[in-house]
Amino acid sequence: MNISLENIEKYFPEGCTEEEKAKIKTQFYKELALKMHEFYKGKIQILPKAGLYGFNWFNVWYTPGVSSVSTTIRDEQDRSFDLSNRGNLVAVVSDSTRVLGDGNCGPAGGLGVMEGKAYLMKYLAGVDGIALCINNRDEHNKPNADKIIDFVKMLQPSVGAVNLEDISQPDCYKVLDVLRKECEIPVWHDDAQGTACVILAGLINALILAEKKIEDVKIVLFGAGASNTTVAKLLILSGATPSNIVLFDSKGGLHKNRKDVENSPEFYIKWDLCKKTNPGCINDIAEGIRGADVLISLSQPGPDTVKPEWIKSMNDKAIVFTCANPVPEIYPYAAKEAGAFIVATGRGDFPNQVNNSLGFPGILKGALMCKARQITDGMAIRAAQSLAEFARKRGYHADKILPLMDEHEVFPQVAADVAMQAIKEGVARVNVCFDEVYNTTLYDIQQTRKTIDLMMKNDIIKEPSSEMITEIFNKVVKSIVN
Amino acid sequence: MNISLENIEKYFPEGCTEEEKAKIKTQFYKELALKMHEFYKGKIQILPKAGLYGFNWFNVWYTPGVSSVSTTIRDEQDRSFDLSNRGNLVAVVSDSTRVLGDGNCGPAGGLGVMEGKAYLMKYLAGVDGIALCINNRDEHNKPNADKIIDFVKMLQPSVGAVNLEDISQPDCYKVLDVLRKECEIPVWHDDAQGTACVILAGLINALILAEKKIEDVKIVLFGAGASNTTVAKLLILSGATPSNIVLFDSKGGLHKNRKDVENSPEFYIKWDLCKKTNPGCINDIAEGIRGADVLISLSQPGPDTVKPEWIKSMNDKAIVFTCANPVPEIYPYAAKEAGAFIVATGRGDFPNQVNNSLGFPGILKGALMCKARQITDGMAIRAAQSLAEFARKRGYHADKILPLMDEHEVFPQVAADVAMQAIKEGVARVNVCFDEVYNTTLYDIQQTRKTIDLMMKNDIIKEPSSEMITEIFNKVVKSIVN
Repeated sequence: MNISLENIEKYFPEGCTEEEKAKIKTQFYKELALKMHEFYKGKIQILPKAGLYGFNWFNVWYTPGVSSVSTTIRDEQDRSFDLSNRGNLVAVVSDSTRVLGDGNCGPAGGLGVMEGKAYLMKYLAGVDGIALCINNRDEHNKPNADKIIDFVKMLQPSVGAVNLEDISQPDCYKVLDVLRKECEIPVWHDDAQGTACVILAGLINALILAEKKIEDVKIVLFGAGASNTTVAKLLILSGATPSNIVLFDSKGGLHKNRKDVENSPEFYIKWDLCKKTNPGCINDIAEGIRGADVLISLSQPGPDTVKPEWIKSMNDKAIVFTCANPVPEIYPYAAKEAGAFIVATGRGDFPNQVNNSLGFPGILKGALMCKARQITDGMAIRAAQSLAEFARKRGYHADKILPLMDEHEVFPQVAADVAMQAIKEGVARVNVCFDEVYNTTLYDIQQTRKTIDLMMKNDIIKEPSSEMITEIFNKVVKSIVN
Repeated sequence: MNISLENIEKYFPEGCTEEEKAKIKTQFYKELALKMHEFYKGKIQILPKAGLYGFNWFNVWYTPGVSSVSTTIRDEQDRSFDLSNRGNLVAVVSDSTRVLGDGNCGPAGGLGVMEGKAYLMKYLAGVDGIALCINNRDEHNKPNADKIIDFVKMLQPSVGAVNLEDISQPDCYKVLDVLRKECEIPVWHDDAQGTACVILAGLINALILAEKKIEDVKIVLFGAGASNTTVAKLLILSGATPSNIVLFDSKGGLHKNRKDVENSPEFYIKWDLCKKTNPGCINDIAEGIRGADVLISLSQPGPDTVKPEWIKSMNDKAIVFTCANPVPEIYPYAAKEAGAFIVATGRGDFPNQVNNSLGFPGILKGALMCKARQITDGMAIRAAQSLAEFARKRGYHADKILPLMDEHEVFPQVAADVAMQAIKEGVARVNVCFDEVYNTTLYDIQQTRKTIDLMMKNDIIKEPSSEMITEIFNKVVKSIVN
C-alpha cells in the first residue's frame, strides 16, 4: 500500500457509498492535518531574502549601514515599500470569531487557517503573508470590532496590504468598511470579497455558455451573509438588474418590509439590499426560485438544503452555485438530474470549484506591485473578468467554467489585470506596465517553488512517512465503514 | 580590485588616518546598505516550512483538514504554540521614535532595523522574527505609549515573544514594565535589557581578569538612559553594592537631591536609582570617576566624550566600557594609554565588542523553547553568566572577554542556560531538558544556514556584483580622503 494524497481514491474500500467516501476524505484530511501541524510545528517561517557573504554583511543589514535606510524612510515614508519587505507583505488578520466552519475558536484559534492563507499566497503568487490572530476580547470575553480597526490602523506602516479573515457578522462589515475608508493600504476581506469575486468569475462564463445576459437574468441568492451580500453588490455593479434579484436569509426574503433588518443598524448593507431588490417582497424560497436563471447558495451544508424540485422549477439552462462546505446544499449529480445546466460547488473533487484561492493571491500581488492605496470594487470585478477570460482562452465548457489552482499562469494574469485597473482608477502609487507585473509575479512564483523544492530535496523540510499517512487513512476508514 | 566586505581594510588609501578609515567604513556601509536594500527590496521573506507533495496537500494545510487545528486550539489555546509557528515566532515591535542613532524616523522608519533584527535572530539562533513598526501617533503626530501597549496585548495570540526596540524615553519604561507585568508571553526590550546583559557578561570576565569582586568595586555609569539604568539594575541584582555606584546623566550625578527626577513620575526607574546610589551626592563626573574600578559609558559619541585624565584618575586595573556608536566615547588606544586595563566598545573592529546580537537570539530561543511566560531578570543574568562562561571556556584574556558573533555554539549554550533558568524560576510552560534545547537550537541554526546557502548557490538570492561594491567604495573614499 503506497498511499499518497494524490491517489487515496484508489484505496477506498469496495462498495463504499459516495457519502462514505466524502466522510472518509474529510475526516482523513482533518486527522492528517493535526498530525502534520504537530510534525512541522506550523507551516510558515521567516527567512532572509538577501545574501550574507561573510559576517561583515551584518554591517550592511544592521548597524551601522542600515542607518541610511532609516533616514531615507524618515524623509519619505513611502520609500519603506522598496527598502523593506513591506512592498510584498500582506497581514492576514483575524479575531478568530468565525474560523471557517468552526465558529469562535478563541483568539489563537485561527492561526492554522491564517498560516494556510499565507502558504497559499506565497506558493500561488509569491506574496509574503503573516498570520496575525488578535485578541480583541473585552473583560467579558466579548470581541470588539473597534479593536480590530485600531490594530490594523497601527499595523499599516509595516505591511503593503491587509487581508481580513474569519471575523464574525456583523463586526466584519464595520471593520471592512471603516478600514477601506480610512487606511492608506488595501484592506481585503477574503471571505466576502474573495468569494464574491470568484463566484462572479464563474457566473460570467456560465452566462456566456447559457447565452444569457446579466442584465436580463433573474438571480436568487440563498443565504445573506457577508459573502452573498457582497456577491449581490458586485453583481449589481456588473450590470445585474436589482429588481431581478432576490436574497433570502434564515427569516425569508430580503425586502423593504423587513423591519427587523431596518431596525438593526449594524446590518446596514443588508438593509440597503432590502430596499433595492425583491420589489415583489417574496418571502418563500420556492416561490423565489421559480423561473430563476441563477441560484447562488451560500447557506447551510447539504446535501438537502436545496431541494431538487426547486431546481426543476428554474428557467431553462439553469445555473446553480451551491457553495456550502464541506457538503454542498445539493450534490451536483442531483442538481443536474433536476435539470441544472451548470453546477458549481466549493469542493475540489467536483467540477467547477468556486475556490477563493483562485482570486486573492493574484489580486493582492497586483495591488502590491502598483502600491495601491486600496482595492476598489472595480479591481475586484476586473479580477473576476480576468479569471473568466483565462478560463475561456484555455478552453471552457459547462464542467470547466473556472481556472484551476494548478494552472499557475492564472495568478500573474490576474495580478497584471488588477494592477492595470488600479492605475486606471487612480488608486496606484506607481505606474507599472502589464508585462512588469506579469513577469515579476511569474518569476516570484517560480523562485518560491524552486526554494521549497530545494528545501524538500535537501531534507530541510522532512517528508512525512508513507506509513504515518497509511495508518491514519486505515484508522479513519475503519471508523466510518463497518 | 576584487573588493569584498571581508577585505576592505586592504583597499584603504595609503596614509589614511584612523579617523578617516573609520569615516570611510561607516559611510561605505551606509551607502552600500541603501543600494542593497533597494536591490533586494528589503531582506526578510515568508516561506513555508512544511512540505507540499502535490496540490492535494492544500487539503491538509488549508480547508478541510485545517479544521482540526482550529478546533484543537479552540479547546486549548496553548496548543497554538505547537500547531502553528507561534512557538518559534518573535515580533520585533517598535514605534520608530528612536531608531538607533537616528531619532524619530516616522512610523515606518524603523523597518530596516527591525528586519535586520529578524535576520540576526534567524541566522544566529533559528528564531523567526517579524518586523512590526507601528503607527501610535495621535492627531498631533505625538507618539502614544498606551497604543504600543494595546497593540502588543492584542498581538499576543500570534507570537511566542515580543522584542521591543527603538522606543524613545520615557515611553519605553512604561511600555516594558506594563507589558512585562500584564502579558502571558515574554516581552524583551533589547536596547535596555539586551545591552545590559552583554555588558554584564563582559564585566563578569573583566572583573575575574582584574581579580576584583563585584561587591567591592566602585562603578561609574556615564549616561542614564534605558540601557544604563538597566545595567545598574542588573549589577545590583548580581551583587554590586548600590552605594558604590554613581550614575551620571546630562545634568550631573543621580542622587536623592535630584528634584527634577523626583518630579518626573515617568522617570520612576531613574528616581529609584537616585535613592539607592551615590550617597555622597557627587555631581561632577571627574570627581565621580576618581578612584573608580569600572566605567561604563553609554553616552554621546566620542572620541572626546570621556577624557584621558578621567581614566588616569581611576583605580588600578581599570575596566572601561565605552559603548557609544559609531565612535566610542574614547578610542581604545587612548584609554589604554591612559592606563585602562580592559577596554570594550560597541565596535566590531576593536577588541571586546559589546554587541547585543550575542544575547537576544539565544535568550529568545531559550524562552521560546520552554514556552516561557516571561523573561525574568534572573534569566537575563543567567544569559550574561552563560556568555561569560562560554568565553572563559574557549580561552579569554583582556582583549577577548566576550564571545564573538561567529562562534555559533554560543547561541545554543545561552538558549539552553536561559531555558533551564526559566524552568527553575517557574515561568516555563513546559519542561525541556538542557540537551533538547541545545541540540534543537544548533539544528535550527544549521538548517537556516543551509537554506540560505542553497538559495545563494541556486541564484534565488542573487549576489550583488563586485563592481557595484567597488564603485561605492571608491566614491566614498574620494569624498573623505582628499
